[in-house]
Amino acid sequence: MRIECIAIGTELLTTRRLDTNSVWLGERLADLGLAFHRKTAVGDNREDLAGLIREALTRSDLILTTGGLGPTFDDFTKELFAEALGVALVEDAGARADMLAFYTARNRTPAQSNFKQVLIPVGAEPLRNPVGTAPGVWWQDPPGHPGARIVMMPGVPREMKRMWEDQVEPRLQPLAGEPTQTLRMVVAGVPESTLDERTRDVRERHGQLEWTILASLTQVELLVRAHDSATLAQVLTDMRPVLGHDLVSVGPGNLEEAVLTGLESRGQTLAVAESMTGGLLSARLTAIPGASRSFLGGATVYSPAAKTALLGLPASLLADQGTVSEATTHALAVATRQALGATWGLAVTGNAGPATEGTEPVGTVYISVDGPRGASTIRRNIPGDRPDVQLRGVAAALNFLRRQLDLA
Amino acid sequence: MRIECIAIGTELLTTRRLDTNSVWLGERLADLGLAFHRKTAVGDNREDLAGLIREALTRSDLILTTGGLGPTFDDFTKELFAEALGVALVEDAGARADMLAFYTARNRTPAQSNFKQVLIPVGAEPLRNPVGTAPGVWWQDPPGHPGARIVMMPGVPREMKRMWEDQVEPRLQPLAGEPTQTLRMVVAGVPESTLDERTRDVRERHGQLEWTILASLTQVELLVRAHDSATLAQVLTDMRPVLGHDLVSVGPGNLEEAVLTGLESRGQTLAVAESMTGGLLSARLTAIPGASRSFLGGATVYSPAAKTALLGLPASLLADQGTVSEATTHALAVATRQALGATWGLAVTGNAGPATEGTEPVGTVYISVDGPRGASTIRRNIPGDRPDVQLRGVAAALNFLRRQLDLA
Repeated sequence: MRIECIAIGTELLTTRRLDTNSVWLGERLADLGLAFHRKTAVGDNREDLAGLIREALTRSDLILTTGGLGPTFDDFTKELFAEALGVALVEDAGARADMLAFYTARNRTPAQSNFKQVLIPVGAEPLRNPVGTAPGVWWQDPPGHPGARIVMMPGVPREMKRMWEDQVEPRLQPLAGEPTQTLRMVVAGVPESTLDERTRDVRERHGQLEWTILASLTQVELLVRAHDSATLAQVLTDMRPVLGHDLVSVGPGNLEEAVLTGLESRGQTLAVAESMTGGLLSARLTAIPGASRSFLGGATVYSPAAKTALLGLPASLLADQGTVSEATTHALAVATRQALGATWGLAVTGNAGPATEGTEPVGTVYISVDGPRGASTIRRNIPGDRPDVQLRGVAAALNFLRRQLDLA
Repeated sequence: MRIECIAIGTELLTTRRLDTNSVWLGERLADLGLAFHRKTAVGDNREDLAGLIREALTRSDLILTTGGLGPTFDDFTKELFAEALGVALVEDAGARADMLAFYTARNRTPAQSNFKQVLIPVGAEPLRNPVGTAPGVWWQDPPGHPGARIVMMPGVPREMKRMWEDQVEPRLQPLAGEPTQTLRMVVAGVPESTLDERTRDVRERHGQLEWTILASLTQVELLVRAHDSATLAQVLTDMRPVLGHDLVSVGPGNLEEAVLTGLESRGQTLAVAESMTGGLLSARLTAIPGASRSFLGGATVYSPAAKTALLGLPASLLADQGTVSEATTHALAVATRQALGATWGLAVTGNAGPATEGTEPVGTVYISVDGPRGASTIRRNIPGDRPDVQLRGVAAALNFLRRQLDLA
């Protein structure tokens, strides 16, 4: 079966916008034992998209598109497929009712342009969009292409994913190949190149499997696919001694979830004090559902005044030691822990740049944890520009706390 | 001129690997006043790549490829272009010398397979690779395609970028288009479909220009390109009355920057109190360089205990009014403003889900601003799942503050 993906949107060609949808879809296809033969990004240009649609219809059995289903003048995916296949678009009563219900639930009135969204090619079937206004399209055996399937989904990742999971994947199940399973290992505190070297022997021992290393600013994921779970269990057994305490978790989840799970399983709580990371540490934790079971909150002490007003740090300490210092960071961790009555206090100060203010160079980060066994502080030099230093600082702080949890 | 990009590599189709090369190339083309008409990713599969090469030769004037230049069995980009154009590959003496020098400098001996890399199609020109072993190819006026240009570059981003900067971009300079300018208008508090309708007349009046609407959870961008600044100035003049106070900024920047700029230009400061947004509001502000000039910090009062401990809210208020309520949100805004001695206090409470805790439904958000003219509180029902409600809540809070700044 030949499968292709068409991502529609001028922003995918001209601005710094990555087509993450097709990557996600590639993963989901792999779960079904299927794979793309090609992926194309094309702009919101009638002629270009029309040409691509004609080509795709001649060469592919399954065409997945994202984007171009919206209400605006530059949305014409359905229209061009209908044209290429010589059928009309008609209003779908169910899609219209869904769209009206979406607006009614929000006490809003649809714009005239929204009604364009509920037009569906004759012979095709609308796919409901429970989280947006643009329905998708499932089109099996379109005119002149028996056996072919066309799936049009919105470009908004959240809407596309929901539609795929609820409606597209079930319809594709009969086509699924031999299913594969993925073992996902999350590692923190190790650069990608080091992890690559450290795991080489184990990867070569299991060289018949498909391996992937995915590095982000906060963690590195090591993914391996196999057809049976016994093989993956053996891989994990071989990998554990190599990864040691840098292995954060196995399966879904990330560093933040590992920290929250670690706290919750111990019945412990966390309070933070953030200077350089400016709220990002808290934001990453509170992005996880259920964070409130162990995360109490904290202070974003972005100014010296906030350090004194919210956490009672003596102005003399800040004057003597500086706001970016071991002593100040330690005092912040102790103070936030005490103020909130938490098991653990975690504080981060530093200089994320771009301008060098104060005496510490850009990239300097202090992290302090105060807990049942007292306080520990580390200093790190973190490379990168401002957003990198902030996010890597958050990861370093979370990973330091994670290690302290294990030791306590 | 029709330009397309072909990214070659099975990993681009099957794993969570983003094709960042083509995004980078799209940016570089824009600098030259050029743009891709399409971008395709294809696997290391002879038949698929050969088909794509034949198609591309029929429709494009400039073809940029990345990948498939290495020494292994699944590298055949040059071979397939040569086949499609009916010419042979021959060893290039300069490329061979470069490759040998690369290995000698590293005290290594090339493998036999490396010699495959120095084969170049007859009539094409090698592009040196100072940071790797795979030379690229520049092929102008290939047989049967006068005026066309084919550029083959390595898939390793560092090698590709270096080759582009040193050798490809200079060769493309004569083709550079008339540079275009972009007018970027950032709008907040208006759904994409409403903005589309409201701006339709003005866009139609300037219908010869290239328009793009980019919606995110926090703002909508309206982009328009033209060759001269007088046209864009007229567009802006026409657009201002239509956008009114929903126009956040013109040019680079976003809602957060507009708020910080608004504060700084007035010599004012901000303190926040975040419950539902859990640090995200602060994180978005402190992502902006120089945020410390007007953002003092605040409290992430994710638990009731934090609301009392950090900002002194009476436990009785929380018990009587609830943590998600107009009275509590108002008290938080007043308290954080007072604690930090800020011009403005901004507080957000709400329920982001997924579980419904307390009496307020998921999506309920209260936003309160306390400032020189007293406090105002709004209640919003925000659609979406947890991350959406949090981020949209941040945007609603920032936009509410922005409007208050204007009124004060």
